[in-house]
Amino acid sequence: MELGVGGSNPPCCTKTMSKEKNLKPSKELPLGFVDRQEKELLIRDFIISNIKEVMTKYGFQYLETPSFEYTDSIGKFLPDKERPDEGVFSFKDGKKWLSLRYDLTAPLARYVAKNYLELPKPFKRYQLGTVWRNEKPGPGRFREFLQFDADCVGTSNLQADAELCILISEVLEKCGLNQNDYIVKISSRIFTKELFEKLKIETTNQAAKTLRSLDKMDRLGWEEVKKLLGKGRKDKSGDFTEGAKLSEKQIDLMEKYMLKKGPYVPEDVSEIVKIFDSYNFKNFTVDPWVIRGLEYYTGPIFEVNLTFDVKNSKNQSIQFGSIGGGGRYDNLVNRFGNIDCPATGISIGLDRLVFALMQKKDFKIKAIRPVVICVFDKNKIKEYIEILNKLRDSNISSEIYPGEGKLKKQMEYANKIGSPAVVLYGDDEIKSGKVTLKNLESGKESLLKIEDLANEIKKLL
Amino acid sequence: MELGVGGSNPPCCTKTMSKEKNLKPSKELPLGFVDRQEKELLIRDFIISNIKEVMTKYGFQYLETPSFEYTDSIGKFLPDKERPDEGVFSFKDGKKWLSLRYDLTAPLARYVAKNYLELPKPFKRYQLGTVWRNEKPGPGRFREFLQFDADCVGTSNLQADAELCILISEVLEKCGLNQNDYIVKISSRIFTKELFEKLKIETTNQAAKTLRSLDKMDRLGWEEVKKLLGKGRKDKSGDFTEGAKLSEKQIDLMEKYMLKKGPYVPEDVSEIVKIFDSYNFKNFTVDPWVIRGLEYYTGPIFEVNLTFDVKNSKNQSIQFGSIGGGGRYDNLVNRFGNIDCPATGISIGLDRLVFALMQKKDFKIKAIRPVVICVFDKNKIKEYIEILNKLRDSNISSEIYPGEGKLKKQMEYANKIGSPAVVLYGDDEIKSGKVTLKNLESGKESLLKIEDLANEIKKLL
Repeated sequence: MELGVGGSNPPCCTKTMSKEKNLKPSKELPLGFVDRQEKELLIRDFIISNIKEVMTKYGFQYLETPSFEYTDSIGKFLPDKERPDEGVFSFKDGKKWLSLRYDLTAPLARYVAKNYLELPKPFKRYQLGTVWRNEKPGPGRFREFLQFDADCVGTSNLQADAELCILISEVLEKCGLNQNDYIVKISSRIFTKELFEKLKIETTNQAAKTLRSLDKMDRLGWEEVKKLLGKGRKDKSGDFTEGAKLSEKQIDLMEKYMLKKGPYVPEDVSEIVKIFDSYNFKNFTVDPWVIRGLEYYTGPIFEVNLTFDVKNSKNQSIQFGSIGGGGRYDNLVNRFGNIDCPATGISIGLDRLVFALMQKKDFKIKAIRPVVICVFDKNKIKEYIEILNKLRDSNISSEIYPGEGKLKKQMEYANKIGSPAVVLYGDDEIKSGKVTLKNLESGKESLLKIEDLANEIKKLL
Repeated sequence: MELGVGGSNPPCCTKTMSKEKNLKPSKELPLGFVDRQEKELLIRDFIISNIKEVMTKYGFQYLETPSFEYTDSIGKFLPDKERPDEGVFSFKDGKKWLSLRYDLTAPLARYVAKNYLELPKPFKRYQLGTVWRNEKPGPGRFREFLQFDADCVGTSNLQADAELCILISEVLEKCGLNQNDYIVKISSRIFTKELFEKLKIETTNQAAKTLRSLDKMDRLGWEEVKKLLGKGRKDKSGDFTEGAKLSEKQIDLMEKYMLKKGPYVPEDVSEIVKIFDSYNFKNFTVDPWVIRGLEYYTGPIFEVNLTFDVKNSKNQSIQFGSIGGGGRYDNLVNRFGNIDCPATGISIGLDRLVFALMQKKDFKIKAIRPVVICVFDKNKIKEYIEILNKLRDSNISSEIYPGEGKLKKQMEYANKIGSPAVVLYGDDEIKSGKVTLKNLESGKESLLKIEDLANEIKKLL
């Protein structure tokens, strides 16, 4: 009798197997998704706790919006996408479409529109959350990542923009970076707007494409960007991206402004620079090449770049580039109705920051692994538990060997998990009322009174 | 000229609007999803930090699997579902289907199968993560929630099962619950398996339906469960659920065993009870009505129930019931191939626990709100920043009023955000080299030396 309450084939599998014999489910992950290990997660937790401290100090409120929104609520603001729903994961839900959020800004705009009357103005909030992009998977291209966002909604005051840059710097320095390790770059959409007027770029579509092309300067260099500004560009894989279709004359003029002319500083940027000065904040540069791919920005834009050496999977030093950025988006909340609600915000990609910190030589975070109490005799479990409780009461990470093997297997286990020491409490020890502590790094054993065990372990850690 | 770099209509919206004039996007959230506010999030953070401390002490490793898995990898183990993909959010991705995880156990089994050779055995890991259920939305039925799971994989040792119950208790007590506030209930699938043999329940399908029916005892009571065990049951909305189709005789026998006979204690449960005793853990009960809807359990099963008063949205005291549970699932990893890998695990629904803690009278967590430095003169911003930096250097949550209004509006803002005090630094104060601190709770104002300000604020907080 097969009951399904202890059998190895739950109903659905039985069903599947009857159709396709021996078909095992895949052990692999879909492309663009990864499992994250303890070390990475501990570094992430460290960053997050620094973020929360800084956010509290700067007076931001903690908010969380859900993973899903109505597709039309979060609109289509992804860079690099031509089709409305490309780039997002969407589901039909009854008659409406739901999408997994692709950033935390669009959901914030929805939240503000929904709760406009009750919110303080300005409204300063921060959020930590996963965002999803349904992109063509490829090496190093993830389809989900963790983001931190801080926004100030309901004011045109550029003090807000300046503070966003400063608070990101404080977070990074709390994480152990020094001023040589990062830089905040600022520019303004006023700069490109005026440039586009000079170039007589007339349509929204062409302006958006021009922005997206310029945004690729870092990765592609000017010669390739020129192709994107013109008729289009074929990438290495053979895929063709249609260009912004600027004329040669327009591209020449663009080159002159973007490459040859010294940085022109729009008014909003120079006001922010003044505020930086009052804060004695110096770790920034004004850079017209800060473009930002998203279309919704309306004023100052910023980017945060890491400047220390980061190595790729082939152990080559790479330009790590931006770990985040943001800018002013004065018209996003207004999409939902007649709400005049200027706003500005900044985002950091936490996975990228974790990756960079993991590569920093002087950055160390170590997982705490338990001391293992070995099991000599299953009938003595009560005695082992007594020792365990003493260690745990002293807040020492510890466990009784949780498996069923002999001592050799137990030692292998302790080494495998990186345990600092094992506790041996065999017949001899029980008789003498003592316990043996074996340091797994030095191999040294010491016979101790039970009441001294916790202190000895603390010394060793 | 409409450039789209500052315009109010991003391309996608322009497109939509040209089709359906004046159609604004929805400000609402899809049913089953919610925005979470600061208080709730702070309580959640408090619980999570307690979880992490306990997990480290007990020697569990921290792991994170992604939101998406291949649909076939996580199988179909949801209770209450007849169709294979019902209950999960799934996407077609090229030729394969992806699903958002519906729990953290199925992804763990996939992870263990994928990394089997490299893992320590046993492998003790914990995970915190969102899970999604694509259920019929309704009041109080959420479609995403945050879960905490601890599992011990690769051993049949019942010490592991016992420790899972004990560690959950330690987490709950760290969160401020006392022993009267919760109870761990345990039972075993051995109990139902033997019962089903007596009743001559012969098919996997009927066994699964019988389990799901019994699992509803808490909510529906025996008379309704009897309908589910028999031909089926029509709920209040008129929806009909097909029954397990047991005969009247079988149902009578079931009633005798489940309701009238004293609790029969299977061997695995009595061994766990012995281990509890060695740990001096008393806050449990053996209860055959712990059923668990999931089909993959094979041995001991547990449930964690809150016993203090919780009120629903109508302010009625309710039986809050289970905030989590788990059990042994010895055959789940084996689905992926020939891997003999017994395992056991426990889950807690964090949102439910947060909700319950929020209702506990003696449980208090307060958000830290910033002291607001008022702006009298935009040209004096440098002076305000000097004061701000002094406060922030003393780690006091503080901000310069971030908006653009007059003093009255600034005071309204400070009250609205729940600020404890405002700092007034007008012309008079600047001249005298002093500063006024206004306590917003008492209304009291005091004129202070700037160097005393931080200390005075600390006293007030």
